[in-house]
Amino acid sequence: MSLTVLFSAPEAYWERYRETLPRAFAEAGLDVTLTRAAAPETVDFIVFAPKGPVSDFGPYSNCRAVLSLWAGVETIVGNATLTQPLCRMVDSGLEEGMVEWVTGHVLRHHLGIDRQILSQDGVWAPVVPPLARDRRVAILGLGALGRACAEALAALRFDVMGWSRTPRDVPGVACQHGAAGLRAVLEAAEIVVLLLPLTPETDTLINAERLDWLPDGAVLINPGRGALIDDDAVLAALDAGRLGHATLDVFRTEPLPPEHPFWAHPKVTVTPHIASETRPESAARVIAENIRRSVAGAPLLFLVDRDQGY
Amino acid sequence: MSLTVLFSAPEAYWERYRETLPRAFAEAGLDVTLTRAAAPETVDFIVFAPKGPVSDFGPYSNCRAVLSLWAGVETIVGNATLTQPLCRMVDSGLEEGMVEWVTGHVLRHHLGIDRQILSQDGVWAPVVPPLARDRRVAILGLGALGRACAEALAALRFDVMGWSRTPRDVPGVACQHGAAGLRAVLEAAEIVVLLLPLTPETDTLINAERLDWLPDGAVLINPGRGALIDDDAVLAALDAGRLGHATLDVFRTEPLPPEHPFWAHPKVTVTPHIASETRPESAARVIAENIRRSVAGAPLLFLVDRDQGY
Repeated sequence: MSLTVLFSAPEAYWERYRETLPRAFAEAGLDVTLTRAAAPETVDFIVFAPKGPVSDFGPYSNCRAVLSLWAGVETIVGNATLTQPLCRMVDSGLEEGMVEWVTGHVLRHHLGIDRQILSQDGVWAPVVPPLARDRRVAILGLGALGRACAEALAALRFDVMGWSRTPRDVPGVACQHGAAGLRAVLEAAEIVVLLLPLTPETDTLINAERLDWLPDGAVLINPGRGALIDDDAVLAALDAGRLGHATLDVFRTEPLPPEHPFWAHPKVTVTPHIASETRPESAARVIAENIRRSVAGAPLLFLVDRDQGY
Repeated sequence: MSLTVLFSAPEAYWERYRETLPRAFAEAGLDVTLTRAAAPETVDFIVFAPKGPVSDFGPYSNCRAVLSLWAGVETIVGNATLTQPLCRMVDSGLEEGMVEWVTGHVLRHHLGIDRQILSQDGVWAPVVPPLARDRRVAILGLGALGRACAEALAALRFDVMGWSRTPRDVPGVACQHGAAGLRAVLEAAEIVVLLLPLTPETDTLINAERLDWLPDGAVLINPGRGALIDDDAVLAALDAGRLGHATLDVFRTEPLPPEHPFWAHPKVTVTPHIASETRPESAARVIAENIRRSVAGAPLLFLVDRDQGY
């Protein structure tokens, strides 16, 4: 049986997937025609990233699933025309890159590396940092990415706390959940990492009130989604000396406009959404595996719960 | 039996050990008089750090061992008056701190964090770094510290190579040894970490010839000993654009003089010997354990091989 898979994503994605997807389909024993244009009723699956040609899923009446190339699906999950099953991307390459970026920036703040990079002034002022075992790090969000980061930091002996909407269990990590848990975690955290999905519940989760729960000098690291934080509240907490630093990889508007105060603020590090990205080779295998499962009548991987939004 | 233990170290050490050592002795069931001055022939053990009162060990005719508070013993191992057994410090706190510092700086260079810290210029220029699995890191020296760092980097999926004088085996690490092995490791390494002891054989190991074996743009990280590298050769390799960066924690002269060109060089990061330090609580337990062993006639831990120099 030959399948028609429509690739709906910006041009740059096509360059990265035009060869990797067919290779993954062949490896999975699938007979697929991969196309960027097809009569809607002939399409069996849609491979999707935001800002591609498809925004109305209604005409794709025979489409068995929409397979996202992005881990975050907040731009599509509320689309009323999308009645097909929607699957998120959970990619080992994305996860590895995120673990490296988060571990690198947590160690950077833990060790005070910025001072060494910025102050090569000939003054020998040794201050040995505390051990990781005496540094409390909180990971907000314990999905695949948050869990992997929490485990990597725990392996480096950081004192790691985790928080999620519903109860989770991560070995070596003190996990809390719900509203009361969030306050307890934030009140103890010296370094906070945001890896939550963006949903109506998490939108602006880190607002003025919750920033105020943090200990003096705490560091905020956001590689999750820009709208998890209230930009103005973060700036105010930095200016008040309450928040020590913010390292931000994601923003409400990307590219972050040159005039946004994050760029010029001495206590903010902007990184241009590079914490991690989906890697075509591993992502293509995830897409192929889900098509294989659909054809075989097996449950889809990483199926989005439309009520929860992720 | 009451033991007399002479503490020979600079004043600052006394402040850190005057309470931790007696506590460790008590925990080990040892009856010890810890003192900073005693008739030499009454001394059973010497706890030692450089620049303390004792430099002639000849009069300490009944001393059963000299127990160093430093991991590196190059300042004392060649002392002709030292005929007593000499033990190095191998401290879990020192090891943990070193793993954190090395992992932090390897990730810093791997991720290109300096660019983000130094260039907050409003220009959104996303370059996603490669995965750690595609980054080759070499650890030179596979003693307790080198091995722990190699294991931590391998756990983060870096492509880790190790080198040591004699054959060693570290799980997940491609180990080489001897002269031929050194060249093979340096020719492949994108990031090189020096954790060798300082001996006549390792003095200036990283000279102009060996720097030339490295791939273009390689990064040198030295938390080991300052004299492992030829300062002028490192500066020349940086200026020639062959070496990408040097992050140096230890120096031939410490504090590093303000006029030393390392301070002002844009491709050198000087850190003031803070990579790690011996932690009094865990180090005191190591000292107590070795005294307990000596009294019980058991082999000493971390006994220095005087011929090898460590």
